[in-house]
Amino acid sequence: MSRLKSDELKKLHQKKYRQQFGCFLAEGEHLVLELQKAAETNPALLESELYVSDSYQDWPGPLHKTVVSDKLMMQMSDTKSPQGIIASVPIAALQHSEPAPVQRAVYLFETQDPGNLGTILRTLGWFGNFACLLSPGCVDPYNAKVVRASMGAIFHVPVEIDVPLSTLASRYAAIGCLDMQGEKLTSGTFHQSDCLVFGNEARGVPAEQLDAMNARAFSIPGCGDVESLNVAAVVNMCVYEINREN
Amino acid sequence: MSRLKSDELKKLHQKKYRQQFGCFLAEGEHLVLELQKAAETNPALLESELYVSDSYQDWPGPLHKTVVSDKLMMQMSDTKSPQGIIASVPIAALQHSEPAPVQRAVYLFETQDPGNLGTILRTLGWFGNFACLLSPGCVDPYNAKVVRASMGAIFHVPVEIDVPLSTLASRYAAIGCLDMQGEKLTSGTFHQSDCLVFGNEARGVPAEQLDAMNARAFSIPGCGDVESLNVAAVVNMCVYEINREN
Repeated sequence: MSRLKSDELKKLHQKKYRQQFGCFLAEGEHLVLELQKAAETNPALLESELYVSDSYQDWPGPLHKTVVSDKLMMQMSDTKSPQGIIASVPIAALQHSEPAPVQRAVYLFETQDPGNLGTILRTLGWFGNFACLLSPGCVDPYNAKVVRASMGAIFHVPVEIDVPLSTLASRYAAIGCLDMQGEKLTSGTFHQSDCLVFGNEARGVPAEQLDAMNARAFSIPGCGDVESLNVAAVVNMCVYEINREN
Repeated sequence: MSRLKSDELKKLHQKKYRQQFGCFLAEGEHLVLELQKAAETNPALLESELYVSDSYQDWPGPLHKTVVSDKLMMQMSDTKSPQGIIASVPIAALQHSEPAPVQRAVYLFETQDPGNLGTILRTLGWFGNFACLLSPGCVDPYNAKVVRASMGAIFHVPVEIDVPLSTLASRYAAIGCLDMQGEKLTSGTFHQSDCLVFGNEARGVPAEQLDAMNARAFSIPGCGDVESLNVAAVVNMCVYEINREN
């Protein structure tokens, strides 16, 4: 990856420039350590660049380092008090060109909230047996808030963006959709699902498309006074249920 | 509750003034509707006041309304684009003076993140059978971000603040603590727990205090590359597990 100029680095807060330059920023010690750990098994991540303030110029590890001014650090940072260490990471390194190994997928339909997506990635990274597919209109997974909330899972969990709902039927044999009304997760059919579809924070998933792919509806019954669960909470419970007996 | 003056309303973003004036703000149509619904069974909430912009002056319901200037609305609002309807809610209305009915509790030790606390309250409100106890040093549950993320659960879930860890042993018979190493949630002993203790986002819970109260350790095994789960994700999975067979 050719090194970015400072005026390019500043623009990586915006999705269109992340796409144009093919990289995103991961800020802070924890994320950089996770990046370095992931690079041990994914050498394409060694193309990442570290941008550091003076106090981090002796930071160890294989990544190329550039010392930058406090001003540029502030401009690159997503927080008010930059830690002083930021990596720019090539997106291509996280895109798996060989056919993905057979595994289950969580499909998020128009999920907008970066904290939710980050938490979901973190949970998928914890259990290790799900890819994450994002519909068109989802928040960009390389958004700084998603990357931070993922706590490094962004470097480990296979993510595919702009996956149309209509393509799932040809890829998965048993699609389940989380809905307000459906079978309980304890039913055997839930455990057979190889793709779980989740609606966004405000609306569900278009019913006619789910019918067309023979998706089965599942739900988590509640008996309290609250109308709905947070989408990340629902994903967490579903992925927990699938992994419960492991 | 005596009505607050405009310079007092503006200060309700700060915890110390929420405590001094005994109320907090709930902003937007959804939260106000949830408040009105909760007031049907908790008449003390009828002491809440609505502050509205011109476009909301015909908003229906039993709460007293005051039309305020756009400027004051901006100052009260936690968002850049205020919806134009904000309630001030008496905290005392949510504090249950009679002894709480026997129910299970989730105890959060020094949870700092408002989004996490809000999501946890929403999940507890969904299942309806857990109170939420907060240790000293937790984020204030009446913080605007918590209230918003709770999606109205703040009006339904019993919450106690400043509960010292050391007082749990006298209140609960079977305390469980979520830790990196412990029994699986599927063990019978987990289901017997009447109080579940969760550490904060960065540190666990002091081990010597847990030993002193004979807390049992439980964990959620993962086999991925990620070091830890988000605390709200762990609470969601635990509360789901407890309610799984209901």
